[in-house]
Amino acid sequence: MIKTPKLVMIPGPTPVTRSIQDQMGRETVAFGDPFFVQDYKDVLADLKELWKCSGEVFVVAGSGTLAMEMAIANITKRGDSVLICSNGYFGDRFIDMCQRKGLEVDVLSAKWGTSVTAEEVEKKLSEKKYDVVTVTHVETSTGAAAPIDAIGKVVKAHGALYVVDGVAASAGAEEYMDPMGIDVLLSCTQKAFGVAPGLAILWASKEAVEKRRSLGTIPESYADFEKWLPVMHDPSKYWGTPAINLVWALKESIRIIKEEGIEERYNRHLRQAALVDAALEAMGFRVAAEKPFRAPTLSVYLYPEGANVNDAEFRTVLAEEGAQTAGCLADFAGKGFRMGHMGNVDKHILVSAVAAVERAAMRCGIDIEPGKGLGVLQKGLAEEH
Amino acid sequence: MIKTPKLVMIPGPTPVTRSIQDQMGRETVAFGDPFFVQDYKDVLADLKELWKCSGEVFVVAGSGTLAMEMAIANITKRGDSVLICSNGYFGDRFIDMCQRKGLEVDVLSAKWGTSVTAEEVEKKLSEKKYDVVTVTHVETSTGAAAPIDAIGKVVKAHGALYVVDGVAASAGAEEYMDPMGIDVLLSCTQKAFGVAPGLAILWASKEAVEKRRSLGTIPESYADFEKWLPVMHDPSKYWGTPAINLVWALKESIRIIKEEGIEERYNRHLRQAALVDAALEAMGFRVAAEKPFRAPTLSVYLYPEGANVNDAEFRTVLAEEGAQTAGCLADFAGKGFRMGHMGNVDKHILVSAVAAVERAAMRCGIDIEPGKGLGVLQKGLAEEH
Amino acid sequence: MIKTPKLVMIPGPTPVTRSIQDQMGRETVAFGDPFFVQDYKDVLADLKELWKCSGEVFVVAGSGTLAMEMAIANITKRGDSVLICSNGYFGDRFIDMCQRKGLEVDVLSAKWGTSVTAEEVEKKLSEKKYDVVTVTHVETSTGAAAPIDAIGKVVKAHGALYVVDGVAASAGAEEYMDPMGIDVLLSCTQKAFGVAPGLAILWASKEAVEKRRSLGTIPESYADFEKWLPVMHDPSKYWGTPAINLVWALKESIRIIKEEGIEERYNRHLRQAALVDAALEAMGFRVAAEKPFRAPTLSVYLYPEGANVNDAEFRTVLAEEGAQTAGCLADFAGKGFRMGHMGNVDKHILVSAVAAVERAAMRCGIDIEPGKGLGVLQKGLAEEH
Amino acid sequence: MIKTPKLVMIPGPTPVTRSIQDQMGRETVAFGDPFFVQDYKDVLADLKELWKCSGEVFVVAGSGTLAMEMAIANITKRGDSVLICSNGYFGDRFIDMCQRKGLEVDVLSAKWGTSVTAEEVEKKLSEKKYDVVTVTHVETSTGAAAPIDAIGKVVKAHGALYVVDGVAASAGAEEYMDPMGIDVLLSCTQKAFGVAPGLAILWASKEAVEKRRSLGTIPESYADFEKWLPVMHDPSKYWGTPAINLVWALKESIRIIKEEGIEERYNRHLRQAALVDAALEAMGFRVAAEKPFRAPTLSVYLYPEGANVNDAEFRTVLAEEGAQTAGCLADFAGKGFRMGHMGNVDKHILVSAVAAVERAAMRCGIDIEPGKGLGVLQKGLAEEH
Repeated sequence: MIKTPKLVMIPGPTPVTRSIQDQMGRETVAFGDPFFVQDYKDVLADLKELWKCSGEVFVVAGSGTLAMEMAIANITKRGDSVLICSNGYFGDRFIDMCQRKGLEVDVLSAKWGTSVTAEEVEKKLSEKKYDVVTVTHVETSTGAAAPIDAIGKVVKAHGALYVVDGVAASAGAEEYMDPMGIDVLLSCTQKAFGVAPGLAILWASKEAVEKRRSLGTIPESYADFEKWLPVMHDPSKYWGTPAINLVWALKESIRIIKEEGIEERYNRHLRQAALVDAALEAMGFRVAAEKPFRAPTLSVYLYPEGANVNDAEFRTVLAEEGAQTAGCLADFAGKGFRMGHMGNVDKHILVSAVAAVERAAMRCGIDIEPGKGLGVLQKGLAEEH
Repeated sequence: MIKTPKLVMIPGPTPVTRSIQDQMGRETVAFGDPFFVQDYKDVLADLKELWKCSGEVFVVAGSGTLAMEMAIANITKRGDSVLICSNGYFGDRFIDMCQRKGLEVDVLSAKWGTSVTAEEVEKKLSEKKYDVVTVTHVETSTGAAAPIDAIGKVVKAHGALYVVDGVAASAGAEEYMDPMGIDVLLSCTQKAFGVAPGLAILWASKEAVEKRRSLGTIPESYADFEKWLPVMHDPSKYWGTPAINLVWALKESIRIIKEEGIEERYNRHLRQAALVDAALEAMGFRVAAEKPFRAPTLSVYLYPEGANVNDAEFRTVLAEEGAQTAGCLADFAGKGFRMGHMGNVDKHILVSAVAAVERAAMRCGIDIEPGKGLGVLQKGLAEEH
Repeated sequence: MIKTPKLVMIPGPTPVTRSIQDQMGRETVAFGDPFFVQDYKDVLADLKELWKCSGEVFVVAGSGTLAMEMAIANITKRGDSVLICSNGYFGDRFIDMCQRKGLEVDVLSAKWGTSVTAEEVEKKLSEKKYDVVTVTHVETSTGAAAPIDAIGKVVKAHGALYVVDGVAASAGAEEYMDPMGIDVLLSCTQKAFGVAPGLAILWASKEAVEKRRSLGTIPESYADFEKWLPVMHDPSKYWGTPAINLVWALKESIRIIKEEGIEERYNRHLRQAALVDAALEAMGFRVAAEKPFRAPTLSVYLYPEGANVNDAEFRTVLAEEGAQTAGCLADFAGKGFRMGHMGNVDKHILVSAVAAVERAAMRCGIDIEPGKGLGVLQKGLAEEH
Repeated sequence: MIKTPKLVMIPGPTPVTRSIQDQMGRETVAFGDPFFVQDYKDVLADLKELWKCSGEVFVVAGSGTLAMEMAIANITKRGDSVLICSNGYFGDRFIDMCQRKGLEVDVLSAKWGTSVTAEEVEKKLSEKKYDVVTVTHVETSTGAAAPIDAIGKVVKAHGALYVVDGVAASAGAEEYMDPMGIDVLLSCTQKAFGVAPGLAILWASKEAVEKRRSLGTIPESYADFEKWLPVMHDPSKYWGTPAINLVWALKESIRIIKEEGIEERYNRHLRQAALVDAALEAMGFRVAAEKPFRAPTLSVYLYPEGANVNDAEFRTVLAEEGAQTAGCLADFAGKGFRMGHMGNVDKHILVSAVAAVERAAMRCGIDIEPGKGLGVLQKGLAEEH
């Protein structure tokens, strides 16, 4: 058989469509070129409008990891207390970041596969005064989504600043700045935006920007909102050279988002996640995330009970069959795989990915009825038009 | 749902892989540029070797239709008699072409969905002396393949020149010049080669070239072997400007063919044709071509008996679901659709195309068990690695 | 020094801009895809309008050489008499093409570097009745342009059909069908259109189409207007598969032409030809074409008198310096080089090409004042904005 | 005239060649894809070898500004004393960065257009113990290059850590880690590497890495060497998602560097800088940097004395003529423009850029002899082959 291209079904990067690739491949221009300056402006304005943000937005060369640090660095000073709501590996990444900066850290952890709830946060905030609360919207290690809207209401009621890590969620799972009371939403390009990696994206509320201002000089330079604000207000200004081609790619991604409609995009992600989950369950896989917490953007699929699956072999075979997925972490390590179903994924990609899982299962001796899982998916997709 | 890209599943053009697209998109150079001249030479040498041709090969800007005319124009003169073995619409296209050139034409026609056989040709050649016999290797209107090897033996035994139309076959169905006694094999780029349309390809035996020489001046210029031979022997020479980017694209296609191995490529086409046919039969569709004559490169699928399908609507829905197919012709018009499964089609493409047919069937009210046809396909594909 | 890319300064192909390359590199679609059908329609409609043609237009996979044959094949029958006005090698190519088809051929030849004039044609047509007169608009072997408008008036007055070979002219030198009385204008994509090679383009007057109709069946198939007319009227119809990506590339070329304005485009070619000619004259080169006949699209530059230049070496050095040019033919062979300055050539390309000639001249021992020729060019270009 | 594309002649980004663009435009893969992991490894290994670095190298999503902060953050702790050798605006950028981190800062400034010398540094280091000395290799605001080798010897003799900012120099001006005693060399992709912006590049000596280790936990996360080291040793490990397409683009840039030979590349930059400077001087412009300090990668060109040039107008006209340049800063603001001549610039680019300056000068009323400056450039370029 001719070699089957590997679909990028890890939880990011996700499949990058040709029109976005083409923006990446354009001739680079001067960062002060008036046409590029306008493109950058458009990107920033669209991000503010689509995420209902009356504050500020930042698009900076870097990764989601940088975005996490930027979120913390701009709204805290040594000694501030932070409540980290962690649903897994990526939630925990805030701990070290905050401790390094001399913050007092408490962690509210959920069982893997579930999420911290608004009630639990309420309890914590009633017991102690926190300056900042962080939540990971979609936890990439478990496929669990946090109820960010409900938690936001609690955080706001207690007067803390509210940081949401949207890395594995933004542009695929509903996030609105002002309506949800988010103070800093941090994200990046290579997940549900469907762009190549290389840009950090942050939205900041007026309160967050005000907090930054009140801090005076901070030790960080590159991460400093105040250094970037003049550029974000007028991209012809200079602080660090923007990653020009990635900004163009992001612009094309936003065009696609607007064409689809961002609310429909959120709904589509919910529907397609339910379909892919159901398809894999029909094959005997188990979705690691518990029902009310299942993310619309990615899932952890645990191998069928009783099936004696060699994890590394399975994922290698699955990659051969044309779907690159990621191994599980910590509690789930060796027991399943992580698969994204977010961004600009169309019916062909969803069918091809599920079919690849099915063939890998057959090849690895999992007892499966060929076509059964696909039938479940197909039934749902046939209703989508 | 986000828009599903339309896979080009008509019987040509077929899906063009990115590496071939990239050759199309290169900066054009001078046709005398030494690097291009070498590329062109390599293409010609590879085509001769892979098709086991001790004669000549021609790669000329034009379409398969031009290639058909070139085949005839170079080996016939007014008054020559031609036996046209026709299995359908494309076989019949030789009739007018030959009559225009003042040839005496007899037609040996097969029932649609079958092929003229070696025995029938033997009978005809025993009854009358023919200068030329033409056969369409794969008949695009029916999905039937002719037994070109067996017919070749008969034609050679009777001393006629043997023309094979390989348009919907070459690079997907077994064709060897010297071993099969073919005198002119004509083809083009956009079918099993998986290249964009725009090049005519012809292989000619020494006898065919000798026949051309014996004709002296012929009325045609652009189609004249003698005009092109100096160029094919030394592509730095000029007769008409070569379609440079298409030659590069063809070179990349040949690289892919060599990487796969041409014999394995022929075998793969047989296996995948059987799988796609079986998958659609499991959904209730019928393959128009009869069993011994089913082509490895494309099929005509007739709607399930009893299903009250509106042909135009079905194909429109199918295109929406992501597979562009072609309507049927003549006897089969309105009763089904034509679908290619040739060229550089990988597992994702095959699964996506069959899944699109399944969804279209569901949407058009055909009684189908979702996943059943895909299960048949998947079982076969899981064994391919 | 880092390798200098070779500008394609032969008289076609010419430099292909990135936006046209990108059309070549697109994913190929079905030729019946409604979006492609519309693109093809737009191309045909624009070609008719821009060339002021109330008749028909044909865009067919093939080269300019095919276009020449198509022009003849559709408006002549055995025994017709043709007057071929030839200004050089490419004009002469009509002779064999016509003789093969059994036409009675007279040739009116101009001295190399000049053109047949309207007066000479008038004289010929007064002496004998001709069915068809052919003229080569820009003769690629000499850089001479024919006065096609004046000759057209004469031809029309005598009731003959008027064929203009626009291969090295169309889209760079003024050509209007109805106003100039042209019956068949033939061309291709890789010259002043600035597209990769692979398409033949023909415009035909109503009279030409009527003549074709009157001929009944003709021996040629692929070249037959009647076969293509239904497709040109409705590109969803099939005769031969169109070279899809080349049609898109041509569409982008036409967009560029319309953006510039076709009359300004013709004027620009006149101005830039004069500038490049003057620049090379300032270096001591001589323009082979005599003053009133100099083409706006390409020039033959003869080496400075007295300079002992090795032709092959000079052009190799010139290619190293970044300009690929063509050797001269027949009378001019060895005495100079042929250079295009047509199509989508901007100031950078013109300056770079002339600078490359200058450096090659220096390296080959031609006595030259560095910057002198460039100064002439620059003075002119500085006035262009 | 057809629109002239704007060459990116600012001091970065620089012209990105098509082969590098094509790497940017590739389909993004998983960051753990074995082929990408190997590509990333190759990039890192090549950077170490070409820069003669026995320590470590870091390639991280971000800009040169991030690289500056990383350099400081990893080798200093509050209270350390730093000597900043500043030749202009970009040298000064270290001041704020260092002060924010609680460092004790002294600045050794050169007159604009010159550089701090080894002797001056020696004097400073003799007077006071410094933990770190920073030098800007090429100062982008003035076009002056610092004698980094000589300064390195002094710094090493005094036992300080030596930071070199190579942003506008690396891959265009000679830099070797071990031989020059550099402890941290920081750079980015969009200058002499000729890649799009988006990656920070740092080389660190063993001493620098050891210093980082001795600091224990530092407040910064994303900038922390210790977080990245495991990834740089094994790119299949995760800390932040790499900017995959930019890594590929950098790999292609390094391939080009190796093809040219890095020493020849440094020499070429010296030669072409001298040529472009001489060409502009022949037009009456003055090079702002004084003779022994002129950078091989970019120049500040001051308007001819006496010429009454409107700076903004001149640069707008220059952009129209096809060369995008940058305005001057601080002392030079309004008096000239900054132009890069680094990276993958070939003869066509150099000639086109200088010609554009000449035409802009003509159009803006500067008294100039057309072709004179170009003649100077051409004479030099003709000797380059």
